[in-house]
Amino acid sequence: MSRTVIHGGLVITASDEIHADVLIEGGRIVALAAHASGAAESWSADRRIDATGKYVIPGGVDAHTHMEMPFGGTYAADTFETGTRAAAWGGTTTIVDFAIQSVGHAVREGLDAWYAKADGKCAIDYAFHMILSDVNESTLKEMDLLVSEGVTSFKLFMAYPGVFYSNDGQILRAMQRASHNGGLIMMHAENGIAIDVLVEQALAEGRTDPRYHGDVRKVALEAEATHRAIQLARVAGSPLYVVHVSADEAVAEVAAARHKGLPVFGETCPQYLFLSTDNLAEPDFEGAKYVCSTPLRPREHQEALWRGLRNNELQVVSTDHCPFCFSGQKEMGRGDFSKIPNGMPGVENRMDLLHQAVVDGHISRRRWIEIACASPARMFGLYPKKGTIAPGADADVVIYDPAAEQTISAETHHMNVDYSAYEGRRITGQVETVLSRGEVVIDERKFTGRPGHGSYTPRATCQYLD
Amino acid sequence: MSRTVIHGGLVITASDEIHADVLIEGGRIVALAAHASGAAESWSADRRIDATGKYVIPGGVDAHTHMEMPFGGTYAADTFETGTRAAAWGGTTTIVDFAIQSVGHAVREGLDAWYAKADGKCAIDYAFHMILSDVNESTLKEMDLLVSEGVTSFKLFMAYPGVFYSNDGQILRAMQRASHNGGLIMMHAENGIAIDVLVEQALAEGRTDPRYHGDVRKVALEAEATHRAIQLARVAGSPLYVVHVSADEAVAEVAAARHKGLPVFGETCPQYLFLSTDNLAEPDFEGAKYVCSTPLRPREHQEALWRGLRNNELQVVSTDHCPFCFSGQKEMGRGDFSKIPNGMPGVENRMDLLHQAVVDGHISRRRWIEIACASPARMFGLYPKKGTIAPGADADVVIYDPAAEQTISAETHHMNVDYSAYEGRRITGQVETVLSRGEVVIDERKFTGRPGHGSYTPRATCQYLD
Amino acid sequence: MSRTVIHGGLVITASDEIHADVLIEGGRIVALAAHASGAAESWSADRRIDATGKYVIPGGVDAHTHMEMPFGGTYAADTFETGTRAAAWGGTTTIVDFAIQSVGHAVREGLDAWYAKADGKCAIDYAFHMILSDVNESTLKEMDLLVSEGVTSFKLFMAYPGVFYSNDGQILRAMQRASHNGGLIMMHAENGIAIDVLVEQALAEGRTDPRYHGDVRKVALEAEATHRAIQLARVAGSPLYVVHVSADEAVAEVAAARHKGLPVFGETCPQYLFLSTDNLAEPDFEGAKYVCSTPLRPREHQEALWRGLRNNELQVVSTDHCPFCFSGQKEMGRGDFSKIPNGMPGVENRMDLLHQAVVDGHISRRRWIEIACASPARMFGLYPKKGTIAPGADADVVIYDPAAEQTISAETHHMNVDYSAYEGRRITGQVETVLSRGEVVIDERKFTGRPGHGSYTPRATCQYLD
Amino acid sequence: MSRTVIHGGLVITASDEIHADVLIEGGRIVALAAHASGAAESWSADRRIDATGKYVIPGGVDAHTHMEMPFGGTYAADTFETGTRAAAWGGTTTIVDFAIQSVGHAVREGLDAWYAKADGKCAIDYAFHMILSDVNESTLKEMDLLVSEGVTSFKLFMAYPGVFYSNDGQILRAMQRASHNGGLIMMHAENGIAIDVLVEQALAEGRTDPRYHGDVRKVALEAEATHRAIQLARVAGSPLYVVHVSADEAVAEVAAARHKGLPVFGETCPQYLFLSTDNLAEPDFEGAKYVCSTPLRPREHQEALWRGLRNNELQVVSTDHCPFCFSGQKEMGRGDFSKIPNGMPGVENRMDLLHQAVVDGHISRRRWIEIACASPARMFGLYPKKGTIAPGADADVVIYDPAAEQTISAETHHMNVDYSAYEGRRITGQVETVLSRGEVVIDERKFTGRPGHGSYTPRATCQYLD
Repeated sequence: MSRTVIHGGLVITASDEIHADVLIEGGRIVALAAHASGAAESWSADRRIDATGKYVIPGGVDAHTHMEMPFGGTYAADTFETGTRAAAWGGTTTIVDFAIQSVGHAVREGLDAWYAKADGKCAIDYAFHMILSDVNESTLKEMDLLVSEGVTSFKLFMAYPGVFYSNDGQILRAMQRASHNGGLIMMHAENGIAIDVLVEQALAEGRTDPRYHGDVRKVALEAEATHRAIQLARVAGSPLYVVHVSADEAVAEVAAARHKGLPVFGETCPQYLFLSTDNLAEPDFEGAKYVCSTPLRPREHQEALWRGLRNNELQVVSTDHCPFCFSGQKEMGRGDFSKIPNGMPGVENRMDLLHQAVVDGHISRRRWIEIACASPARMFGLYPKKGTIAPGADADVVIYDPAAEQTISAETHHMNVDYSAYEGRRITGQVETVLSRGEVVIDERKFTGRPGHGSYTPRATCQYLD
Repeated sequence: MSRTVIHGGLVITASDEIHADVLIEGGRIVALAAHASGAAESWSADRRIDATGKYVIPGGVDAHTHMEMPFGGTYAADTFETGTRAAAWGGTTTIVDFAIQSVGHAVREGLDAWYAKADGKCAIDYAFHMILSDVNESTLKEMDLLVSEGVTSFKLFMAYPGVFYSNDGQILRAMQRASHNGGLIMMHAENGIAIDVLVEQALAEGRTDPRYHGDVRKVALEAEATHRAIQLARVAGSPLYVVHVSADEAVAEVAAARHKGLPVFGETCPQYLFLSTDNLAEPDFEGAKYVCSTPLRPREHQEALWRGLRNNELQVVSTDHCPFCFSGQKEMGRGDFSKIPNGMPGVENRMDLLHQAVVDGHISRRRWIEIACASPARMFGLYPKKGTIAPGADADVVIYDPAAEQTISAETHHMNVDYSAYEGRRITGQVETVLSRGEVVIDERKFTGRPGHGSYTPRATCQYLD
Repeated sequence: MSRTVIHGGLVITASDEIHADVLIEGGRIVALAAHASGAAESWSADRRIDATGKYVIPGGVDAHTHMEMPFGGTYAADTFETGTRAAAWGGTTTIVDFAIQSVGHAVREGLDAWYAKADGKCAIDYAFHMILSDVNESTLKEMDLLVSEGVTSFKLFMAYPGVFYSNDGQILRAMQRASHNGGLIMMHAENGIAIDVLVEQALAEGRTDPRYHGDVRKVALEAEATHRAIQLARVAGSPLYVVHVSADEAVAEVAAARHKGLPVFGETCPQYLFLSTDNLAEPDFEGAKYVCSTPLRPREHQEALWRGLRNNELQVVSTDHCPFCFSGQKEMGRGDFSKIPNGMPGVENRMDLLHQAVVDGHISRRRWIEIACASPARMFGLYPKKGTIAPGADADVVIYDPAAEQTISAETHHMNVDYSAYEGRRITGQVETVLSRGEVVIDERKFTGRPGHGSYTPRATCQYLD
Repeated sequence: MSRTVIHGGLVITASDEIHADVLIEGGRIVALAAHASGAAESWSADRRIDATGKYVIPGGVDAHTHMEMPFGGTYAADTFETGTRAAAWGGTTTIVDFAIQSVGHAVREGLDAWYAKADGKCAIDYAFHMILSDVNESTLKEMDLLVSEGVTSFKLFMAYPGVFYSNDGQILRAMQRASHNGGLIMMHAENGIAIDVLVEQALAEGRTDPRYHGDVRKVALEAEATHRAIQLARVAGSPLYVVHVSADEAVAEVAAARHKGLPVFGETCPQYLFLSTDNLAEPDFEGAKYVCSTPLRPREHQEALWRGLRNNELQVVSTDHCPFCFSGQKEMGRGDFSKIPNGMPGVENRMDLLHQAVVDGHISRRRWIEIACASPARMFGLYPKKGTIAPGADADVVIYDPAAEQTISAETHHMNVDYSAYEGRRITGQVETVLSRGEVVIDERKFTGRPGHGSYTPRATCQYLD
């Protein structure tokens, strides 16, 4: 069993900052010992990594990605191979992607398809949530099976009628089932029925540019759906995880529910923290790059999101990584914003952007690790394998240089997409070296991993409910 | 340097649960290593403590005690010697006690008196907050000095006119000063001016029994003062820590402030979580045992407190340990509840009662450690020496038996007081062994410590604001 | 032109209490003059009504009735003839009933059917709201026509899928249309899609008694739909009137919207103010008498409704009069609560029950007249013809004896239904004499009216928005 | 007994708009009759006033004036003679002024002084509130006497320590007394103790200009005091009327209390609705003209006030008329804003400014009359003599031309002060003729009244609590 020692760094977890060396044996962390202690110095190792002046942090857990996802007649541009490699470059060592049940098909069929897509391709570990597009008696029964095999979270959509949409009765039934089998319901909370009316009206009136995507998907309709999902979960007695919260009023709904003691959780994404409707309004159809749903919001919503992250009204920052190239894909929506594939790249940028938030004073270092590593791991049953640095945990470790300077750019990024949503943004901090279960997959900014190293990781049920 | 190994236990911190052995050298934790790993097995040690089947947790940090405190012509019955010994028995290895400035006297005078009282007496480490009873220009200047010497938090009272009371102008000035020097203002939030009117009226009408203590100190007047303190802190731009929050409406005020992003924190105490006005109404003057301020509340307030602790609307559970014997002390108030010395014993019971809350499902194990150890340590600048188990931290460690059964009783407790507020209560879980900076002070339920082992510990400023 | 003088009474309007005689010429009020004034004494009259010791109040306006309404294969038991006669007995001189568009049919067709049903039958004046069951392009166009002909309010249902239900897109479109044509959207706010799931589950589990009707139509699902309707109205820029608000949380949603300045209004009904789930649980299927939707709520909700009425968070008390006989009609639901026709009698009891509320101290006399007469008249464009006593207003006047005692009973009531929801309830206060447009229709508790006296009354748009 | 008929106008009350002639006999309104009705045409009259095209409205009730008030070593510039004359010019026919108890003096002494000041001077009717500056046992007893003689409201100050200030104990005692004797507590809600600290600091730092008056009297400190007053009233079980609410957060406190069902009322003033901190910042010390307390707020607070008035979260608009000349009086504060006498003129402008609000769409015509006439009359026990147009009411009537155009200016106003706070503002609408108890005091914009016409009017207790 190979032994690695990472020495001299500052180990950061969700609750601690420790000047300690880390001993890894095989794929797991075995010990931490104070720098220069006898214990640390007694360690022999096959490989010693000098982390002096660096942070030693848990590999990121990105709980919301869509590799190779079919959408509007095309596919998200990152495969499991390219997407997980880019994730590694960005310091993320686990993704939880979404398998999809299609309407009229068994859940199993969708799940098996995603197992097959990912198998042997991934550079880092991965797991699956299940999107339920057709909640019926048979689907409900399959939910139990999935929980027992490690697919313990189920995403439902209040948007996208005719595609992913579930009505309130379907949602209620799925929530009731989850309240019994331990599954966690994840909700895309936008009133898609109402939004589709506004889309139709906007197009009819010639408001076809990308920025109208933001206009029609109104804050009030995100807040509405968030409130509705919470009330349905309350009736069902189930917990609820609201994905990609973008609007201040939606944060307020989640916060109000939590204040009442309801097991309601909220996720936001870097794009809502760093971008805004100003981007959607970029000229020459460039706004299309920023089309995703929930949409980007006016700049003033950002403060509510940061505050929610500090207050633990929001628990997780994921990416909703779902990249479509500008050329050929985003362009499908020229003249009709509703045809622009929804989604943005980001799996490579999350850890850096959130470190920038530390630098900017939005969050503390520990909170950075909590929202990016520990909380998603706990939320989705991956803890304590993932999300922390402690004896017994998987050796998913990032050596992070907090002083390095970088500029985000499509020219240098590793995602399979022809633009960056953060093009030209200067970041303080950079991933230097990444270990995935003890194997170095990024070595001082060289990719040393391989497709197939990453393992499928069945998950326990939500550990945030302990 | 002596070496101790604690092996076989489950190490619990605010964020992690780790099956690891712990290596202690001298007074500090040096390393953690997975059970039965080569690293762990290579450790030589002078002492090996078998923690198999036990929890290995950070020593408790009780951020609110009043040893030997003068009150109403008598003194709290626990000295620093008896009180810290009892704390050790209960798994608490650090207290932050309150030095008191008297009206008309310098702050320094009060602080020196408390240094002297504690010096050479304590079984565990200790630090001081400073009660400011006379905020004036000179007091404000002394605040800066205290912060620089490690007394970084200042308690003010909106209650007890003529004794500890500060008016809103004094409070505002102290908060402004704290906003500049990094001090944390701790507030006893009750409208004492209004309460004293109600006290006078109650006594005049013959309502003299202990339960009227609870009647006159109304929920509305705690909520009022909490709101007022928050608004004053907002004007001053300072953080605020509200001590002994007892009423649901006060929790709501703290929660609302936090939702707005204000740096407002709340503490509650075991008596508010486990006792109620039912106790105050016990016959034969027994209610006097439960007289403290803020007062016990009707039972239904407990749920709001538990919810606040789960939601992080409240961050800390301290004891407000301030024991007066029933015989001779509490009895001073027969026929006049306002003469009953305010305060209850509890320093020995906190860790157990909160473990019972884990057993009862109110909080998770990690949250138990967070509210009882990690958060108070961070809040009051003791982290990372105190409040966690990690290389580099002080070796304040408790071996806790989660399966032991005990019954709380004055007959068996070690506090210097003739009654227990929790007499007869059955608890699952018990402290077995306690280390203070590496020294065993409780050894399988025998006291092996000594007065003077405990050191005065200067504190950094509030680390919760990072 | 016949002249009537009502002398000696206390005239009560929404804002005034006036010791004045009232002069009526033809169908209108012409003058008010102080008792015993020269002006009053100069009046000659064909008829003089002595109101000494009595109240002289505007005839009630019941803005929510369902005469002869088809529901679940039967019809509400009161025809326009019997129902309006009972209304007159109860001091109500105007009803606004609901014409119904059926799915697949033109709005006009429904409206014409209701015109025909009521024509020549009514003892008092009447008007129509329109229920839209099939919102489509053609329906939207017909809305404009209806507004221009005096049908200025449109009811939509978030409940009853497959019957009256509109989805959120239909609701949004209708609201948008209303925001342009001045119409007022009235909403039955319950999440019927979710409720139907709970109904199915309850029946499947053998919970078939009437009380389960209350169980499945949950408070959370009324609050949810209320919130949703408000958000949709906000998006549409339209006002909103929520019918039969029954739950405290729904009042809170309306109140929150109003606090934000949104033009949102709320109606409640006597059954929610005076009855509760205790009635639904009456044995021997008697609970069926109280089956209506929204359902009766636990008793503690009543206080929120009274408070809302006092605060003007709720503006109107209507009856939702929709009587089904226990024998033969309510009985259709034995063994399956979902087959019980939804609705209760009450058009005759409203003014008395609300006077009882004055006696009980819930509301003031002026507020009684405001919520029962003036506000519904203004809300639905009937003011100043209806809802007040002032020169120029229709002479719809009630001489009300505030000291009379009566007992409500099916034996003595005039509604065409075999039970009373308030059987045996003692009321202080009783209608003595009623004038409809100057004609005495109840004369010292004898019915002197006739079918066909009542006229159809086209309405202006909502005057509450002035 | 002289008879006057006002014919052809639109009579507006708090709830009705009536095309009616009004018959006045002696000092009272005797009858209303529809235009051109036989009843109206039968009236003989000594005087006929043609109100065709005009509004006929109740005379305004200004419930908050300070004539000849001593403040900071000077006196408000309007005497009861000049101030009430100006009020009449502005369509106000009743004022409730504040008699003042001085510290160390009996309440009676202050009241008698004010009786004497006003006696024989007033052009319109007047009444008194009592300012309590020294709440003690003897003061509490005097409260009962005052209520019984028609001084039924008592103002307390949370600001102005050393002058009018009462501490929370005094406030609580006065509220308790009021809860028994029916008195209404009026509160100046600003935390004066904290404000004085900020004043001292501002002056010490050279921030001496008028605009710093607004800076130091912070929104948070108005909200704080409002919340505190509400909680104290809740403890006392008394109603509460908060004077001159200026800040959005204070409106929110009042609204929250009302939503909970507490009998809490709020008043605002035209200066908060029409002026802002922009005025306080006017150069050349002109800002001093706008110094009053509570202070003017940033412009964005206005919307919350208008919304509160529409929602009935605020019930009354009074002026807080307390004029000091710029020259010689306001100038006392050059170089020290704290020496600027606090107060602004406005008694003449209120009805016009609020009519402008009708024109601008902020409120309806009926609401104009409600907040300016009916609600203050009811709030302070003057109803039904004052505040409405109905048989039996005092003939305090204004003929108001809604189409006239005027420009407010010190050159044309009748208040005894050398500037106007609304100089140059264009208003649509103007008072044409004013009757006070049937006597014409303004006749087509000529003053025909006289000092001494106005009578002292004892008041009943608050009628808003019915």
